[in-house]
Amino acid sequence: MKRKLRMGMIGGGKDAFIGAIHRIAALMDGQIELVCGAFSSNAEKSKLSGEALFLSPDRVYATYEEMIRTEASLPEDKKMDFVSIVTPNHVHFGPAKMAMEHGFDVVLDKPMTFTLEEAKALQQVVEKTGRTFCLTHTYSGYPMIKEARQLVASGKLGRIRKVYVEYPQGWLSTFLENSNQKQAAWRTDPKRSGIAGCMGDIGTHAFNMAEYVSGLQVTSICADLQVVVEGRLLDDDGTVLLKFNNGATGILFATQVAAGEENNIKIRVYGEEGGLEWQQSDANTLLLKWLDKPTEILRAGTGYLSSYASHNARTPAGHPEGYLEAFANLYRNFALTVRAKANQEPVQPEWLDFPGAEEGIRGMAFIEAVVASSKTDMKWMPFEV
Amino acid sequence: MKRKLRMGMIGGGKDAFIGAIHRIAALMDGQIELVCGAFSSNAEKSKLSGEALFLSPDRVYATYEEMIRTEASLPEDKKMDFVSIVTPNHVHFGPAKMAMEHGFDVVLDKPMTFTLEEAKALQQVVEKTGRTFCLTHTYSGYPMIKEARQLVASGKLGRIRKVYVEYPQGWLSTFLENSNQKQAAWRTDPKRSGIAGCMGDIGTHAFNMAEYVSGLQVTSICADLQVVVEGRLLDDDGTVLLKFNNGATGILFATQVAAGEENNIKIRVYGEEGGLEWQQSDANTLLLKWLDKPTEILRAGTGYLSSYASHNARTPAGHPEGYLEAFANLYRNFALTVRAKANQEPVQPEWLDFPGAEEGIRGMAFIEAVVASSKTDMKWMPFEV
Amino acid sequence: MKRKLRMGMIGGGKDAFIGAIHRIAALMDGQIELVCGAFSSNAEKSKLSGEALFLSPDRVYATYEEMIRTEASLPEDKKMDFVSIVTPNHVHFGPAKMAMEHGFDVVLDKPMTFTLEEAKALQQVVEKTGRTFCLTHTYSGYPMIKEARQLVASGKLGRIRKVYVEYPQGWLSTFLENSNQKQAAWRTDPKRSGIAGCMGDIGTHAFNMAEYVSGLQVTSICADLQVVVEGRLLDDDGTVLLKFNNGATGILFATQVAAGEENNIKIRVYGEEGGLEWQQSDANTLLLKWLDKPTEILRAGTGYLSSYASHNARTPAGHPEGYLEAFANLYRNFALTVRAKANQEPVQPEWLDFPGAEEGIRGMAFIEAVVASSKTDMKWMPFEV
Amino acid sequence: MKRKLRMGMIGGGKDAFIGAIHRIAALMDGQIELVCGAFSSNAEKSKLSGEALFLSPDRVYATYEEMIRTEASLPEDKKMDFVSIVTPNHVHFGPAKMAMEHGFDVVLDKPMTFTLEEAKALQQVVEKTGRTFCLTHTYSGYPMIKEARQLVASGKLGRIRKVYVEYPQGWLSTFLENSNQKQAAWRTDPKRSGIAGCMGDIGTHAFNMAEYVSGLQVTSICADLQVVVEGRLLDDDGTVLLKFNNGATGILFATQVAAGEENNIKIRVYGEEGGLEWQQSDANTLLLKWLDKPTEILRAGTGYLSSYASHNARTPAGHPEGYLEAFANLYRNFALTVRAKANQEPVQPEWLDFPGAEEGIRGMAFIEAVVASSKTDMKWMPFEV
Repeated sequence: MKRKLRMGMIGGGKDAFIGAIHRIAALMDGQIELVCGAFSSNAEKSKLSGEALFLSPDRVYATYEEMIRTEASLPEDKKMDFVSIVTPNHVHFGPAKMAMEHGFDVVLDKPMTFTLEEAKALQQVVEKTGRTFCLTHTYSGYPMIKEARQLVASGKLGRIRKVYVEYPQGWLSTFLENSNQKQAAWRTDPKRSGIAGCMGDIGTHAFNMAEYVSGLQVTSICADLQVVVEGRLLDDDGTVLLKFNNGATGILFATQVAAGEENNIKIRVYGEEGGLEWQQSDANTLLLKWLDKPTEILRAGTGYLSSYASHNARTPAGHPEGYLEAFANLYRNFALTVRAKANQEPVQPEWLDFPGAEEGIRGMAFIEAVVASSKTDMKWMPFEV
Repeated sequence: MKRKLRMGMIGGGKDAFIGAIHRIAALMDGQIELVCGAFSSNAEKSKLSGEALFLSPDRVYATYEEMIRTEASLPEDKKMDFVSIVTPNHVHFGPAKMAMEHGFDVVLDKPMTFTLEEAKALQQVVEKTGRTFCLTHTYSGYPMIKEARQLVASGKLGRIRKVYVEYPQGWLSTFLENSNQKQAAWRTDPKRSGIAGCMGDIGTHAFNMAEYVSGLQVTSICADLQVVVEGRLLDDDGTVLLKFNNGATGILFATQVAAGEENNIKIRVYGEEGGLEWQQSDANTLLLKWLDKPTEILRAGTGYLSSYASHNARTPAGHPEGYLEAFANLYRNFALTVRAKANQEPVQPEWLDFPGAEEGIRGMAFIEAVVASSKTDMKWMPFEV
Repeated sequence: MKRKLRMGMIGGGKDAFIGAIHRIAALMDGQIELVCGAFSSNAEKSKLSGEALFLSPDRVYATYEEMIRTEASLPEDKKMDFVSIVTPNHVHFGPAKMAMEHGFDVVLDKPMTFTLEEAKALQQVVEKTGRTFCLTHTYSGYPMIKEARQLVASGKLGRIRKVYVEYPQGWLSTFLENSNQKQAAWRTDPKRSGIAGCMGDIGTHAFNMAEYVSGLQVTSICADLQVVVEGRLLDDDGTVLLKFNNGATGILFATQVAAGEENNIKIRVYGEEGGLEWQQSDANTLLLKWLDKPTEILRAGTGYLSSYASHNARTPAGHPEGYLEAFANLYRNFALTVRAKANQEPVQPEWLDFPGAEEGIRGMAFIEAVVASSKTDMKWMPFEV
Repeated sequence: MKRKLRMGMIGGGKDAFIGAIHRIAALMDGQIELVCGAFSSNAEKSKLSGEALFLSPDRVYATYEEMIRTEASLPEDKKMDFVSIVTPNHVHFGPAKMAMEHGFDVVLDKPMTFTLEEAKALQQVVEKTGRTFCLTHTYSGYPMIKEARQLVASGKLGRIRKVYVEYPQGWLSTFLENSNQKQAAWRTDPKRSGIAGCMGDIGTHAFNMAEYVSGLQVTSICADLQVVVEGRLLDDDGTVLLKFNNGATGILFATQVAAGEENNIKIRVYGEEGGLEWQQSDANTLLLKWLDKPTEILRAGTGYLSSYASHNARTPAGHPEGYLEAFANLYRNFALTVRAKANQEPVQPEWLDFPGAEEGIRGMAFIEAVVASSKTDMKWMPFEV
């Protein structure tokens, strides 16, 4: 396969937030081209979206089912290679399953599905079909998060003792779903978002970050979810105490009612010998702290980083890369993996370092567990997947 | 009283950390002079400490009992006005009670006492004797913390919804009490520190900060304390979920095993309309966040601050004041209050804004409650004083 | 023109730094596709580069002359629309002139040309041919730099008094051109870089930034250039005092021997009423300072910014965009302008806000002036273009 | 001498800014007591000031001449040991000379005198009388500035190549001397301030910082001073290019019209191997940068610092010390030196590390040189003392 990968998109029509992000992330590195799409459940809107994206009208579809079926029937040198699914949560499972069963690889926005049950079923589809599957936990794509994971794995910090992860936002401080705000509307609607609001939307990112960086797995939780804004149907705030499989403990909090906060997901991990700290607002920096030595400022794009961090940067130090590049790293690694498989070439471990079905299932289990824990009077609840 | 206040010190001999801090804080503003001391339970050490402080040998005592009795018998124009008590926790109640009962005002290091019971008894002594009593919750002395409290009280942030307070340290990451480290030794010893380690030492500061800035009171807690370092006798790490009397919720964490962390106590408070953020490492700055406007950087020493913040700064903006000045603010306000009372002059509300017995009792109740909560399987426990 | 713009690239083969950056910037927003290239003066290298970019072999050329001639002869529905020129400075004028004279629009890396004379000649070509011409002064593409310019223009800061711009790098601290480092080699070689090293490479960016943000023009300079690293043939460090056409003064410094510095171009502008500060390491933030009010933190992606800042951001606040997006803003605005002209649609002023021939000529004049000024004993030299 | 040093103060009455600062700095460490003063040229004001400071009325004088003469006649166990002179610049030479000639040591606010000639004369008095003399260049008292100087001296950064120092303030952005602002009035008045305004007030601090940290001496300058605010009699802004005795070059700028700036003096020094950066707004941090390693964050109060930094800190890391402690370090080192000399004990090199007459003369020469340089058309002027 000596060509760009051909992407079809499901969802992401005009006014959608995350669809446009996925397209930038997919296109940026010249590995992928957008060839078709079913951009909206509204056929007219899908058509207009396709036009604005300069797609050929015959590759713009009214439904995802039509797209998958039609594309599957196109000749090899024309049909799409994979789909990118950027719909609300209740429309994740259907298109992902259908796409894989029709031979297409899949990039899927998080959380994986509407329910944990669906997630487990989807994992079986992944396994059965052998397709390449990527779940877009964007924050794991940052080069300094890669570095953080490698540092913990190297043992330099000693045994990990504490993991603090936080994800404060303020955009749902008012009853925004009451106005005509599309993003707020579906995220606070149990029919489209699932049983959790804030915890599904951003808590799952924080959970993924905690496990990805620490290399540990959560084994018990104690959750307290809140509906802070009156009239809201789903949690807009929550705190979860964590116990990990090595005995470490931690705190995860996510909130969408921290007035004035933007989107500054942050993680701190402490071991016996040192600690590390990263936050999205200074994404190209990783602070590395030591018991008896000066804190070090590790910076993206420098020569002293691991192969995982270096592979996921495009520019030398001091040319800040951001959220879109972190996102693009997922797409690039997915594309490199898919192409290598197609060409029966070796897949480098750095390429394979993107979230997949296992992370997706753990995320869905997290959602179900925190909702359940929050309802009980018991402090700790085992977390098992 | 047209003279400096005369201070006697109990504890704070050579090698003590906090005694030296108290002396700097007391002397800095020219309101107080050190005239006598019982600096150590070791008489020789007390004597040497007094010498190093240029005290007259006849004002350096072997025990606090001797000091209080002797000073009480000195003529009015010579005897001390108040004592500053900077001993380990198990030697707080005795000297404080005795001093007040002999007519001396008291500055007392936190936590108030060894047990909650002692604290309640001490409060009755305060009430009975009518002495001025100051508990050194240092962090409430920072001008931008004063400003934060005033801002919340003004209602500009709307009803408070979330309070996050954290106090990470790393200095007890190893089993330091095993070496010859005096600070570590008594703080991890239940016989001198009380039933809590980290929670008594720094958790109480965080708790005081949360209530002081928010103007709210904690009504329920869910605590999880840890002994992270093997062999340690008291908690060195803990997290407490908080519910407040207005329905707000929050998180408090304090740890002494966050390797590489110094002492960066930090608070964030969010209301319906905005939020604020302060951390000790940038103590002269208060971030004020809004739903739809740029975050504002409020700075100590500027002209736009409240009378409470202005009163507690000595320099114009851009001349950083720090921990010692925050501490000195407690002493200065205490001294201004004592002098005004002595002179039967009006006491300004800004001067009275230092922590006293009520804060002390709440702190002791916090210690007992988090230890109890941490032992139960129930999630929430009412917090009542 | 209801399709992507078709780009041909000159230079930017394997191992080139800036070529890869230009391609990411061009592709990211789905407005442009890469259709052909003459990627190297080495035909084989050009071919391999084209392959790696998935180009059709018949669209990969051995020389830029061949490319321009051949593409000009292709049918309308196939031939490229514009060229992106990313060669060393001595190969700017030739391809830019030839491309425009063959009817192609041009994106050109800075500095504009090898000499001021060439720049003036090229401007005449732009005027004569009427082509759209964009010079990639990347930093003017940052949304918060757009906001800074708009703020100054609005008069809110009052008359501008001081402009400080600095551009510290450290990568040429050693005699790197002696090793096999391609970037260092041509940038320190007078035959490829021109009469200035550091001042041409990054001093011109700083100069552009100063004039762009302040809206002023430099009228006098006092320059002091240095060759710090022994054996180097061109300046690697320089300071320039500035006088502006409204009476304001300023300082520009650029250095490539500030060991440990990355690439943190920074600008501060002060007027009678307030000041602003921006630096690339925190690119999504603009500090706005006032005489008697708190400093405000303006952030990219928020709702309170000017149309110029908003147009040049892709994500909501808190999703950091960086250098590549700033670069992409130049390409996107160029593409929007070219397409609108082609479609005879109105060109919005926000789209036209990219650097062109005038900025290029001023930059080349700056290079010549600072080299001349540095050689004289006189303090001030008029700066005229 | 087993007692506190006895200080007399000249100047620093009610409403004075710097006098109050000096008193806090002198008292904080329990090494010094204030025993007498001539606080104002207005006898009544001096008296009231003495009362507010709880001084005995017979030790409050109407003029400095009276104070020095009277104190000199007091018995040894009563009379002052040294004077602290905090008057405007035109009243520096007289009291300093008289005090030393009457056997008193001297702490003198900067700049040393009204003219360079006076400074040279005063240095001769220092030498002739053998008194201990301290000039309060406050910023050299910060522990991390001590560390910076030691790091440069250690050679770890290699030969120094660049020195950047800046001192931006904004408080004179308006014609403040026209209102009833005492600080502005004398600082902008040539009769009290001398031939320079901004350059004398804060430029001298920046100059001292540059030489102190780099360990180098300035040998040539190119200055450009401005009177930005209409009607002002002295410079309120200036830039000075610097050449040092080892071939390094640098930039110094100081301004009092950078609207919205507070007092953030900042220095950056770069050598062949690395660089360092410090700014007052984050005074407890020193950034140490390297060619190929992560930047290190050196922090005051840690265990890995030099004896010079450690000696000048009072608290463990994370308890921020600030401007007043930096100031107090000058007084403490002065007091330790005076006492050791009195007791014929060895004086530790760390104690002697405070600015004296040589720094004072260089500062006065700097003022005269920048004023002269600014008036010429020649670029460079030799700087000789």
